[in-house]
Amino acid sequence: MREAALANQNPALTSALEHLLASGGKRVRPAVTLLSARLFDTEPRRAVALAAAIEMLHTATLVHDDLIDGSLLRRGLPTLNAQWTPGATVLTGDFLFARAATLAAETDSVRVMNVFSRTLMIIVNGEINQMFIGRGQASREGYFQRIYAKTASLFAVAAEAATILGEADEHAISAMRHFGREVGMAFQIVDDILDFTGDEAVVGKPVGSDLRQGLFTLPVLLYYDRHPDDRDVAALLNSHSGDNQRVDRVVQAVRDSGAIALALDEAKAYIGHAQASLAAMPANAYRQALSDLADYFVSRNV
Amino acid sequence: MREAALANQNPALTSALEHLLASGGKRVRPAVTLLSARLFDTEPRRAVALAAAIEMLHTATLVHDDLIDGSLLRRGLPTLNAQWTPGATVLTGDFLFARAATLAAETDSVRVMNVFSRTLMIIVNGEINQMFIGRGQASREGYFQRIYAKTASLFAVAAEAATILGEADEHAISAMRHFGREVGMAFQIVDDILDFTGDEAVVGKPVGSDLRQGLFTLPVLLYYDRHPDDRDVAALLNSHSGDNQRVDRVVQAVRDSGAIALALDEAKAYIGHAQASLAAMPANAYRQALSDLADYFVSRNV
Repeated sequence: MREAALANQNPALTSALEHLLASGGKRVRPAVTLLSARLFDTEPRRAVALAAAIEMLHTATLVHDDLIDGSLLRRGLPTLNAQWTPGATVLTGDFLFARAATLAAETDSVRVMNVFSRTLMIIVNGEINQMFIGRGQASREGYFQRIYAKTASLFAVAAEAATILGEADEHAISAMRHFGREVGMAFQIVDDILDFTGDEAVVGKPVGSDLRQGLFTLPVLLYYDRHPDDRDVAALLNSHSGDNQRVDRVVQAVRDSGAIALALDEAKAYIGHAQASLAAMPANAYRQALSDLADYFVSRNV
Repeated sequence: MREAALANQNPALTSALEHLLASGGKRVRPAVTLLSARLFDTEPRRAVALAAAIEMLHTATLVHDDLIDGSLLRRGLPTLNAQWTPGATVLTGDFLFARAATLAAETDSVRVMNVFSRTLMIIVNGEINQMFIGRGQASREGYFQRIYAKTASLFAVAAEAATILGEADEHAISAMRHFGREVGMAFQIVDDILDFTGDEAVVGKPVGSDLRQGLFTLPVLLYYDRHPDDRDVAALLNSHSGDNQRVDRVVQAVRDSGAIALALDEAKAYIGHAQASLAAMPANAYRQALSDLADYFVSRNV
């Protein structure tokens, strides 16, 4: 995804954008967007603009998140904040937001731009909630709200907006929004599982990073339900600092328990709901591809 | 400008937004927007959405700027970053960007949303330029590029977008964009003059703040043209730290010279161009009000 430069675009900004856009990632959001668009025979130019807008918005939020969390690695490569000043990192994220909005405008749809900008409000509000109340919180309800705001909301708008551009009827738009939301929930649950079970060399960041930040995700919530007297978990809940040895012990305990399989079952249930909402969609090759992509979301190991 | 809260909006975010939106400011950008809209009998609902979007975008950029510059006061009140963590400040700015985009979508105009998002790219790119090459730079050309990106671009889009919504012809749209650009240039020059001549209690921040940050604005550029052997100015240009006593001496020298009057003359010339481009616009009360507002831009002392 090579971007045309702004007239007078700062060379340091250009090189930062190239670093960010070349650094890989699975591009699952553009994949959901483009397949949903093809399902309804959306004009390719508008579909591509939307897919790029979605990925750009995602990248913008990652740039600010990594800065705020002080994360030094992402996808096995140094983050922007690991190399630049905080100020330059804030501004690069801002530029990506602006570029995302410009791409969204290239869809020529006010309705798409509207759902797109509202989604950014949901994502940012979710991050603020996480900052103020998320640490050491151990409720399923809080967890599912958090992953909706953080991840599923963007998958939902990807599928919904693609369907809007395809001029599908309201029933299809709503069904595809549901599809996007459910695969997004599953995707994040699997991300959270990989933070326990993943191979550091493959995932590109250390395991246990959520717990170290005081963030309780589904695997540890399920484990704690079944082992309410685990003193390490209780200690992590009650302190706001993640003692490394304690975190390592909890990661190991969660891996050795049935909690991982239970969490994966929940992710698979979301995928089942997503696939069910495809049933009423046009029966073409893109519908099958979306269903296969959904299966990949819960079978991946990276 | 009381904002309806997002469902589940974090209370800390709500209180930060109330602090920011209640903290005053001159609201000159909404004034330009609303008067330009009335000039062409634009639907009030859409004009108000645009004016709010413009002011919200402006506020978002201020929140991140104050964080990056470490500014502790704005309009005589503590900045958000003076009270909050950097992370919460970054996210509040992001939320304001998202809210601005949502308001821009309420204009129901793809063209407006397009120019609006492109303007944000220009503003942010200008800030990045300022960060990487702006310090200690003493060229008129660089100065005018900088204040276009920082200030005039937003005034330009305010007047242009209001005229687009008013369904005026392309000639009027282009003339009003020019009007906005020129009053914006004048507005920023006067801001930069006030950073030398202003009364700290009235302006709400210490004088000489630009020089202290290594930023050379029009008054000191004009002074240095006429006093090329001023060693204090040369020292500020060549060092990247603003020694306080040296800055105070330069501020005093600029105040005592004719540079302030010369800078004001340049601002007035911009206002003259702006008023000239109003000549072909509909001759109603709003045209007069825009002309009067332009005069205020160069007569204000705050």
